[in-house]
Amino acid sequence: MEQFISPKKEAWKALLERPTASYKDLEPLVEEVFEAVKTNGDDAVRKYTKKFDGVTKETLRVSSAEIQTAIQRVSPELKASICLAKDNIERFHQAQRTATVRVTTQNGVECWQEKRPIQNVGLYIPGGSAPLFSTILMLAVPAQIAGCSEIVMCSPPDKNGALPDVVLYTANLCGIEKIYTVGGIQAIAAMTFGTESIPNVYKLFGPGNQYVTVAKQWATRFNMAIDMPAGPSELLVVADATANPAYIAADLLSQAEHGPDSQVILVTTATSILSAVQREITTQLERLPRKAIAEKAIANSKIIAFSTDAEAIDFINQYGPEHYIICMENEDDYINAIQNAGSVFVGNYTPESAGDYASGTNHTLPTNGYAKQYSGVNLDSFLKQMTFQKLSAEGIKGIGPAIEAMAEAEGLQAHKNAVTLRLNDLKNES
Amino acid sequence: MEQFISPKKEAWKALLERPTASYKDLEPLVEEVFEAVKTNGDDAVRKYTKKFDGVTKETLRVSSAEIQTAIQRVSPELKASICLAKDNIERFHQAQRTATVRVTTQNGVECWQEKRPIQNVGLYIPGGSAPLFSTILMLAVPAQIAGCSEIVMCSPPDKNGALPDVVLYTANLCGIEKIYTVGGIQAIAAMTFGTESIPNVYKLFGPGNQYVTVAKQWATRFNMAIDMPAGPSELLVVADATANPAYIAADLLSQAEHGPDSQVILVTTATSILSAVQREITTQLERLPRKAIAEKAIANSKIIAFSTDAEAIDFINQYGPEHYIICMENEDDYINAIQNAGSVFVGNYTPESAGDYASGTNHTLPTNGYAKQYSGVNLDSFLKQMTFQKLSAEGIKGIGPAIEAMAEAEGLQAHKNAVTLRLNDLKNES
Repeated sequence: MEQFISPKKEAWKALLERPTASYKDLEPLVEEVFEAVKTNGDDAVRKYTKKFDGVTKETLRVSSAEIQTAIQRVSPELKASICLAKDNIERFHQAQRTATVRVTTQNGVECWQEKRPIQNVGLYIPGGSAPLFSTILMLAVPAQIAGCSEIVMCSPPDKNGALPDVVLYTANLCGIEKIYTVGGIQAIAAMTFGTESIPNVYKLFGPGNQYVTVAKQWATRFNMAIDMPAGPSELLVVADATANPAYIAADLLSQAEHGPDSQVILVTTATSILSAVQREITTQLERLPRKAIAEKAIANSKIIAFSTDAEAIDFINQYGPEHYIICMENEDDYINAIQNAGSVFVGNYTPESAGDYASGTNHTLPTNGYAKQYSGVNLDSFLKQMTFQKLSAEGIKGIGPAIEAMAEAEGLQAHKNAVTLRLNDLKNES
Repeated sequence: MEQFISPKKEAWKALLERPTASYKDLEPLVEEVFEAVKTNGDDAVRKYTKKFDGVTKETLRVSSAEIQTAIQRVSPELKASICLAKDNIERFHQAQRTATVRVTTQNGVECWQEKRPIQNVGLYIPGGSAPLFSTILMLAVPAQIAGCSEIVMCSPPDKNGALPDVVLYTANLCGIEKIYTVGGIQAIAAMTFGTESIPNVYKLFGPGNQYVTVAKQWATRFNMAIDMPAGPSELLVVADATANPAYIAADLLSQAEHGPDSQVILVTTATSILSAVQREITTQLERLPRKAIAEKAIANSKIIAFSTDAEAIDFINQYGPEHYIICMENEDDYINAIQNAGSVFVGNYTPESAGDYASGTNHTLPTNGYAKQYSGVNLDSFLKQMTFQKLSAEGIKGIGPAIEAMAEAEGLQAHKNAVTLRLNDLKNES
């Protein structure tokens, strides 16, 4: 990893930069698939599944029999692990429920805010090299707690046209009944428009490759909401001399193995740890099955040393990391000062893997600097807030004249009139 | 208004439809302005202000002297009305604060969720025919409560190159210091990239014409978040024989005067009120200064009668109105059943105008069916949720083996290794 010791402010811009991949050239393909699925439904989905996944699927929905078979093939140990993770995720997301907010803003004017579930949601679970069943927990558990009435899940078929056993086990454990062996652009298009077998949804969740990313963005042209914009995963570790170099290296590598474009940054106020960290990275890297991937990511990664906490904190807030590990003696200062981060991991016993799988926090997080304005997926991601108000005669008498004056000043006479009519009636009654 | 009595389900699709305006042909212009502002900053902003607003502005930011002069010119009555509205909006949005969510998901695993403000936000206040100062209250008040550190406001100049007095008064009242006489695409581009005088922001709020709508959407290509997608404003009233036909007509017209594309729908379970409502609309319309606009909107609007509450509720939920007035004897049934609506107004003394200005609820709401998946602007719109976790030695021992098993099953060995290293150290210690 390249090292930058006490970089001047002028040099920060380059250090803060993310790779900006543009997928604009994928848009014509995405548009083509969307048009086809909109017009031809399941037939188009089958056609593109054949074309992109090399698989012929007559039935897109996974049957109960297939699910039952899959459940039996998952080892009891893995099942127990998934159940432990699910319990913790459930506990943390359940605690995120909020009560109705009810305020009498002035006499006779009652306002309240309630959250109600987004009725139909779609979960996209990527396939490819690994079965990402942990993402099912992260999306389906809060969707169920929120009370979404229809949860649709799509995931691409493997070369035999099936979904991995553990994916089906986890989906079933989370109470998802509508599981489709469909991936890529055609899955996103199907959940956007609905087909004969795949229902349309109001909001799409889940990560994916660049095709899925562009397709989710494209879906927003058709009244779809999405969880958040996507980008390569990233981790920033801030560490001082109290941190363990082996743990730091292991955490950096756990991010690096995601993909060659993963962003990994170590910020430190103690240059004394640097050689030990670099040595640990080299040693640990050798043993990784995904060494080729991690090596590329590490080559693009940076170690940045600052002489003060203030500078380090300023840099971290300007970067806005998706995952942020704090291994500092004065950890509370760093916790209190963080303005922009997806999920924060505090102390030597809190690897990113904990939140990726089992601590209870969500692992679907804003990356690419989006932590500045987006929340990670949480219970509210599956709810929307609605406001209500009820005025009594006293209420309208109290705020009516102010509404009349403001509507008049905005040139909206009919807005004023809706109040005047009522006020006149109340005057005549009394 | 056209009437539909007991429409069959097959006919609903047409009744639920919104006008779908596509602004795709505006994209080349938006792209041009964005590129110019990105490259030439203030110079480009000035050039397009001259071109689109017909005004030459050397200084884009409004000076304190201009603000002070404006404040003196607003009438005390209007000031008092705005203050009353601001108080109510403040009270309701203040109550939306939530405490930190803190959960020990299992022994030694502490997870918490905190909300922190989006640091830089941009408020777009449209100009044009009327000075929409009420929107400043709706956006600036929650931004201040959230604690956003930089609030930037842009609004287009009138033909004399100025902003209306009441706009400056309200912005100042809400503590906004950075006010720019810049509108349209160039305002959105300036807040996206930043210029010499206008800071860039992380999230954009506020309504606007089709140019602003497309520009906000375009800004999302450059790491910008937006409050919500835009569309014509709309109102659905559900009323039975206990409702007052004059009030219903006044409420429908208050929505209709917004623009010729406003969507106005009356759903009723009592056909007995229909002739009185139609008569009231005709009479009241005659007296409106914005009659020409309201008349066009009313001509496209619909009255739909259902014979049962269940059908009415089903229809309303499928429509998902931005504004929803309930004037029904069994109002609680309708309140409890609503799944998709922006803001709900209950009873004969609660016109939409109340929420537009002064009850305390927000008037920046999801339209065009987006109530199915979007919240209206609320305190959370200016915050993002971050999660934190801290594991003790006991904590990692408790969940470590589950993480190892899951990481292994996902083929992510480095994720597993980050846990294994720590568990081995703990074993050796004990």
